[in-house]
Amino acid sequence: MKARILRTIPSLRKALDSHRVDGKSIGLVPTMGCFHEGHLSLMRRARKKHDIVVVSLFVNPTQFGPSEDFEAYPRNEKRDIAMAKEVGVDYIFAPSVGAMYPQENVSVVSMHGMTDVLCGASRVGHFDGVMMIVCKLFNLVQPDESFFGQKDYQQCKVIQRMVTDLNMPVRVAMCPIVREPDGLAMSSRNTYLSDAERVRATILYRSLMDAKTMIKQGKCSVALITKKIEKVLSVGVSRIEYIEIRNADTLVAVRNIKNNPVVIAVAAKIGKTRLIDNIIVR
Amino acid sequence: MKARILRTIPSLRKALDSHRVDGKSIGLVPTMGCFHEGHLSLMRRARKKHDIVVVSLFVNPTQFGPSEDFEAYPRNEKRDIAMAKEVGVDYIFAPSVGAMYPQENVSVVSMHGMTDVLCGASRVGHFDGVMMIVCKLFNLVQPDESFFGQKDYQQCKVIQRMVTDLNMPVRVAMCPIVREPDGLAMSSRNTYLSDAERVRATILYRSLMDAKTMIKQGKCSVALITKKIEKVLSVGVSRIEYIEIRNADTLVAVRNIKNNPVVIAVAAKIGKTRLIDNIIVR
Repeated sequence: MKARILRTIPSLRKALDSHRVDGKSIGLVPTMGCFHEGHLSLMRRARKKHDIVVVSLFVNPTQFGPSEDFEAYPRNEKRDIAMAKEVGVDYIFAPSVGAMYPQENVSVVSMHGMTDVLCGASRVGHFDGVMMIVCKLFNLVQPDESFFGQKDYQQCKVIQRMVTDLNMPVRVAMCPIVREPDGLAMSSRNTYLSDAERVRATILYRSLMDAKTMIKQGKCSVALITKKIEKVLSVGVSRIEYIEIRNADTLVAVRNIKNNPVVIAVAAKIGKTRLIDNIIVR
Repeated sequence: MKARILRTIPSLRKALDSHRVDGKSIGLVPTMGCFHEGHLSLMRRARKKHDIVVVSLFVNPTQFGPSEDFEAYPRNEKRDIAMAKEVGVDYIFAPSVGAMYPQENVSVVSMHGMTDVLCGASRVGHFDGVMMIVCKLFNLVQPDESFFGQKDYQQCKVIQRMVTDLNMPVRVAMCPIVREPDGLAMSSRNTYLSDAERVRATILYRSLMDAKTMIKQGKCSVALITKKIEKVLSVGVSRIEYIEIRNADTLVAVRNIKNNPVVIAVAAKIGKTRLIDNIIVR
């Protein structure tokens, strides 16, 4: 099937209803565009598992804070569409802001606890925006399964919990981080980096690998691991936003990492660009 | 088909999935049980329009405030089931609180503005609870259409707006209030009334009819109509909670009733029982 580009909600509903009637399974990859190998890996996974693959391409204004980079967020729709077609998706849903938010959205979807930590601590309202747009996309596409990248670990966990709490009829797959050969986690925001910053940016991943090595050596103190990461990062970043070790499922802070799987997550600025990365340690 | 009683989410999903595969349309009537003619009218309407009718029977704790009547709320499941069977519904979904809320629900669904007025002004958190349970039921049953009574007018409008904002794939039908021969709107809470209170309770409806008469006579001042209702009510109720005339769709307060359809809504206590009623004036 040749990929179709859909711009409106009625055209999306109409296209997908026909497949649902035929009993086809639907996979959804929600994105903000500016595709890289990370996005493509999600699409390929969806392609492998489902009859119909929908990729949404929408830079959602409600998940950006007033001082954040909504306007500057990299957009390259023409290239994105070509890349998605190359992977063989069936539909590219690329609505305007007006199509997704035709009137003031007075409803709110939010979460206690899990959204207040990590990225949520500094990005106030970010996860409300994420939950809203994902809720809308799930209700519009009604996918059997949706695909998100582990790079946005907290986002994955928040969405999984929302789906559980609201009994949404969709599976949420968290897919591995795709990295550049030197370890930098792929991100649309990497395009902001200057050449010199790009070289320094690998330090996020290296700090996490050093933490992993410590743990393998049996050094399981959260305080010591955090200190190590801080030391490594401080060489190359302009500001550390957080270094956190938390229960991989509940995102509750842990004291030691022996009992449960944990996520080690970092956020830091390289120049003016905010980057995040994480690893799961079992 | 003989009505089946379902107690668990997996059994509900399994039963309905088979009908969905067959392309059957599904109507949902969400209730808190203690059925009266009002509930039955919703079920009959759903029965007429849909292949499969699901009635949910669940006294949702999260929509009751700490000082409200969750524990005392009238329950009579055996009678309810018999009545629903009589109407010919296909499924009665009557889960336990533990089945609906197996763990702490950290997600929140709420609304700005519309939930802060009328009943929302005194029943803090009530509509968050309503939105959450309706969200869950919609996601579990995935009905084509759901049926609510106009008696809970604000609830209908909040749910309709939530469905619009979140792009939920379900129609929300608001069905007429069913009244006792003397005009009292049917309500599960009417069972709280003593015989003497039951007689006095008709005053809510009579006050609304007096308002309607005024409007027919061309007296369209909100202030004067409100005053009239207040005068009528004060004879029989122990406390007036609100008398409000609002835009029928947005629930925004209006100054005069000539331009748009309005809802005239009252809430008052007869003895210790809180009753509500409303009429729409076009």
